[in-house]
Amino acid sequence: MATREKTLKIGLLTSGGDAPGMNAAIQAITLAAAHHKLTCYGFHHGYNGLINQDYCILAPDNVTNIIHQGGTILKSARCPEMMTQTGIKQAVSCLIKENIDALIVIGGDGSFNGMLAMQDHWQGKLIGLPGTIDNDLDGTDFTIGFSTAINTAINAIDKIRDTADAFDRVFVVELMGRHSGHIAFNVGVACAAEQIISFENFDPLAQESKLAKIIADIEQQKQNKAHSYLILLAENLWPGGAHALGEALKQQGNIDVGICVLGHIQRGGSPVAKDRILATKLGVAAIEAILLEKSGIMIGECESKITHTPLTKAIQHQKIVNDDLINVYDSTASHMS
Amino acid sequence: MATREKTLKIGLLTSGGDAPGMNAAIQAITLAAAHHKLTCYGFHHGYNGLINQDYCILAPDNVTNIIHQGGTILKSARCPEMMTQTGIKQAVSCLIKENIDALIVIGGDGSFNGMLAMQDHWQGKLIGLPGTIDNDLDGTDFTIGFSTAINTAINAIDKIRDTADAFDRVFVVELMGRHSGHIAFNVGVACAAEQIISFENFDPLAQESKLAKIIADIEQQKQNKAHSYLILLAENLWPGGAHALGEALKQQGNIDVGICVLGHIQRGGSPVAKDRILATKLGVAAIEAILLEKSGIMIGECESKITHTPLTKAIQHQKIVNDDLINVYDSTASHMS
Amino acid sequence: MATREKTLKIGLLTSGGDAPGMNAAIQAITLAAAHHKLTCYGFHHGYNGLINQDYCILAPDNVTNIIHQGGTILKSARCPEMMTQTGIKQAVSCLIKENIDALIVIGGDGSFNGMLAMQDHWQGKLIGLPGTIDNDLDGTDFTIGFSTAINTAINAIDKIRDTADAFDRVFVVELMGRHSGHIAFNVGVACAAEQIISFENFDPLAQESKLAKIIADIEQQKQNKAHSYLILLAENLWPGGAHALGEALKQQGNIDVGICVLGHIQRGGSPVAKDRILATKLGVAAIEAILLEKSGIMIGECESKITHTPLTKAIQHQKIVNDDLINVYDSTASHMS
Amino acid sequence: MATREKTLKIGLLTSGGDAPGMNAAIQAITLAAAHHKLTCYGFHHGYNGLINQDYCILAPDNVTNIIHQGGTILKSARCPEMMTQTGIKQAVSCLIKENIDALIVIGGDGSFNGMLAMQDHWQGKLIGLPGTIDNDLDGTDFTIGFSTAINTAINAIDKIRDTADAFDRVFVVELMGRHSGHIAFNVGVACAAEQIISFENFDPLAQESKLAKIIADIEQQKQNKAHSYLILLAENLWPGGAHALGEALKQQGNIDVGICVLGHIQRGGSPVAKDRILATKLGVAAIEAILLEKSGIMIGECESKITHTPLTKAIQHQKIVNDDLINVYDSTASHMS
Repeated sequence: MATREKTLKIGLLTSGGDAPGMNAAIQAITLAAAHHKLTCYGFHHGYNGLINQDYCILAPDNVTNIIHQGGTILKSARCPEMMTQTGIKQAVSCLIKENIDALIVIGGDGSFNGMLAMQDHWQGKLIGLPGTIDNDLDGTDFTIGFSTAINTAINAIDKIRDTADAFDRVFVVELMGRHSGHIAFNVGVACAAEQIISFENFDPLAQESKLAKIIADIEQQKQNKAHSYLILLAENLWPGGAHALGEALKQQGNIDVGICVLGHIQRGGSPVAKDRILATKLGVAAIEAILLEKSGIMIGECESKITHTPLTKAIQHQKIVNDDLINVYDSTASHMS
Repeated sequence: MATREKTLKIGLLTSGGDAPGMNAAIQAITLAAAHHKLTCYGFHHGYNGLINQDYCILAPDNVTNIIHQGGTILKSARCPEMMTQTGIKQAVSCLIKENIDALIVIGGDGSFNGMLAMQDHWQGKLIGLPGTIDNDLDGTDFTIGFSTAINTAINAIDKIRDTADAFDRVFVVELMGRHSGHIAFNVGVACAAEQIISFENFDPLAQESKLAKIIADIEQQKQNKAHSYLILLAENLWPGGAHALGEALKQQGNIDVGICVLGHIQRGGSPVAKDRILATKLGVAAIEAILLEKSGIMIGECESKITHTPLTKAIQHQKIVNDDLINVYDSTASHMS
Repeated sequence: MATREKTLKIGLLTSGGDAPGMNAAIQAITLAAAHHKLTCYGFHHGYNGLINQDYCILAPDNVTNIIHQGGTILKSARCPEMMTQTGIKQAVSCLIKENIDALIVIGGDGSFNGMLAMQDHWQGKLIGLPGTIDNDLDGTDFTIGFSTAINTAINAIDKIRDTADAFDRVFVVELMGRHSGHIAFNVGVACAAEQIISFENFDPLAQESKLAKIIADIEQQKQNKAHSYLILLAENLWPGGAHALGEALKQQGNIDVGICVLGHIQRGGSPVAKDRILATKLGVAAIEAILLEKSGIMIGECESKITHTPLTKAIQHQKIVNDDLINVYDSTASHMS
Repeated sequence: MATREKTLKIGLLTSGGDAPGMNAAIQAITLAAAHHKLTCYGFHHGYNGLINQDYCILAPDNVTNIIHQGGTILKSARCPEMMTQTGIKQAVSCLIKENIDALIVIGGDGSFNGMLAMQDHWQGKLIGLPGTIDNDLDGTDFTIGFSTAINTAINAIDKIRDTADAFDRVFVVELMGRHSGHIAFNVGVACAAEQIISFENFDPLAQESKLAKIIADIEQQKQNKAHSYLILLAENLWPGGAHALGEALKQQGNIDVGICVLGHIQRGGSPVAKDRILATKLGVAAIEAILLEKSGIMIGECESKITHTPLTKAIQHQKIVNDDLINVYDSTASHMS
């Protein structure tokens, strides 16, 4: 009975690579916490905020007009200390000292490993929210930030298409995505890229034969009618990246190639509607999960329904690129004609 | 055996209100048709293209670099003749004369009624693609154009928020959506609107009590701390629309209100990734459905899977706004505090 | 000698309609003040901040990452008290009490009148910065916010063009601009509008003949080849505005017309480069003017050079729309053919 | 008298790097030519269109709805043949064969050299329009495309700022600009970059001392309060570019640096209002110059007035970055504190 009258204290931090929509999640958690009369602490700079006891109180007035902002008002950081027992214990001792009942971490798989490491040392509730542009967490159709990253990339590539088209020129564009093709295939289909080279359809051992096929495809296209030709390349895949691939096309195919590595512009920016709505839903659901005394889970959304997935399962990297998307690429892109 | 060797002829038209992503669908249908060696005819100005025998051949070269363009290269139009038996027969006679085997129509419920009317007079295959910003078709989680309309609206409302915030002012913003709250609730949550007034949560008979509640909520907010206050209003709902609501707030609540009717800017613009990808998937699936000899269906996507829904079912207006979204609004917006 | 060692105190406020770039000016003034070791006070809600002694200290740390934000972090407001002697004296007494040496006001002509009213009662320096989307201040080629408003309008109208083009339809779009055609002509040329109706080329007494000419022009266009037709209308010009004009075209010309009033979306949004750079230059120049003991002037930029214009001259509304622009419209728009 | 009744024939081509606004210029030239009853030929792929006699007639119907499109509908290309006497004579013989009276070339200094080379072999009028994002032509305050490139860059850098800010991190961003700092300084001031390294303020021989100063500045900033730190670097300046500078900061300063080379996204995209208006004005002025029998000149705009500059003068690279802009950077950026 005493516990029921006690106000629950929620901790919140953003960790790992920033993702558009993190601020929307912070806002939703703050507002839903206030709605349920919980107190909300925001820790700064990811897990460093726990280790350094660096935090603020998050009340509704602190989160007005942030839903449309990229980045994270709580700041993020990598935190190597969390790889050590000393660091983990420092983080936990902060939570204990401040009487935190539940901690919500918005981040990717590295951030979730931090929560798993704390589990043995802390009795509070641990809730993860999928915040990463890479969409490489299981238990949610989309991660917060992914949809914005896709749209940022297509807007950039639309501009490159303008230039490629003006010159009937070939461009290689390298996209983020860590080790999966979620970004590459979604962006590729959305930009009608002539080639998508991603983990799902490229064997690094078959580099030479791939190169030969691309060169043959470009030549065949030119025989029909010259036009622009975009090759989208996932990062961490082709040895030497976009520059090496571009160089090989020049050398072996005598092709004039433009090269563009989109890089960090894919991380920031005002979140698109999808990410704002997803982040808001997941933020509210995180507070509701805490009220239901859940722990050790990631809140996600699958097929438009809120889901709870054990943190250990969320980080297994088993979510694959939608088959339909790969089929669609195969049925529309020039390379098959 | 003879028929198998015959090249199928596909007709394609866009009808009703234009929606961003229609061009992506046109491109995908053209490319997938070419991939399967079908011939594709594009009829201009909606059903008028059939009645006036106004068409072009759609080959891959005709659809390069259109995936990112708003509007529709085939043009659209309302077509009152399709409400008459004479008009319907003229349309059908064109299809017969040109030996069209299948007709794909991208549009909304009015456009689908046109197909249903032709069904009694024509033996060819009829396939609908959901193309409308209103998301008011059953059998698909999202219609082509809806996601872009949402994003266009939030970008406009972000600007209004800037001004509202600079003045701690109340704004009423009227959104499109015909007779459902899909646009209102998605935009409202994505903009953290203080009030969403939509078909799902407003009884026109309770107009006076709603007004009193809003005025009370605004006053309570001001007592805490002045800030901006956005009221999103679905069109076709409040008698007299945004102007009448704004006037009532001024008169009865002595509140300084800015008013904005977003209007047609919600229809156009370069489609967001979601609409490009959805349109591409559905376009490819339409060609595949024709190869499978399907007819009288709308191609949709539910829970990331391609679906076939009878046209008669697609237009029943039974898809409701996601409950989670309404709950989220109730848990975060100020009006509940 | 004593005065030279004293740190100058600068007051700063934003007043009247908010304009994109006001935050860039606030940042530049704050940084330049710090650079010259001045103290900067930011007053909230326009002149109300003086009357209510509501202010904050502006140090470089308070203005990081605001250059790209619309609105104004100091908030703005109309201030009817400044129309009264009592209000003016209250404002002045705040400046005296806080030992402010110079006041910078960012706003339009109404805001400048406030400064002129204070001049008789206060010995400090008074510096105006032109902050209004309407570009209706003399002594500067462009006001802060104008370029962003133009771009916001063209982006909205590009979307309307998509829809107009899909339907070969006529649209009337009403633009802001108070009582001059700076916005109308710049937007009209940038969107290749078929008609621009503005103060510079329309006599309200000749309403009927204008209507007849437009209807004739639309009909002639249709005889050549149907396409979209955009009519841009300046606000406060045509009796009844865009709705009345649209209605008249329907009634008298039997023309199907779409109508759109852009409204407040033209005020907000992230400032374009031009406004950020202009605001930054003028902000730095304001501090330099204070160091030179200037007063009663507006800082502007004419032909890429910083200018000082007496406040009394800045508000005379004599800057007219660039002749070249009107000529260009006459040489390219369909209405002349 | 016979000649007066003859319809003048105008040739038009776009050459060199594409620039946003080229299509607006093509539209304006086409419409103004039609207005004055001239015939307009559009040559494809730059000077190659002359050499290969590859052209189309440009009538008003061919240029509807292109004013907002990036790239160039006439396509562009480098044309090495124009470096040879054979190529030049082929180009000229095409103009003679088609009875072209005047040729308008939209491009940069390389494109203007092509015109100068033809001057000895052809009696027709030669008119240049400044079309390049680099703003490195004399005789015009701005080139067509420059303003859009600036805005594209600031939008990308705003996103990088989000990420930099979330991590209090240092980023090096490399910008286009060939051999001048017009882009670097305008973008730098518009993004409130902490460092701008450009031709105007960096001596390559002083590389080591510059590096030491930047490291010292970053360290001093961190002692005050950690926040993001953006270094904008002009291309073709620092040996090894952004990657080398980033690596040096890591090695010598032990600083965690993100690196981004914006590259070709700066070329494309829908033109901002400024470029559309400038291109339209210059296009109309080009037709007027031809009617006045001018030749061997570039049409530009200086201080809002149309100017004629001999082609030989336009390519002398003497236009320098606005002093005020450099001063403003010096008065506001952290590096001076």
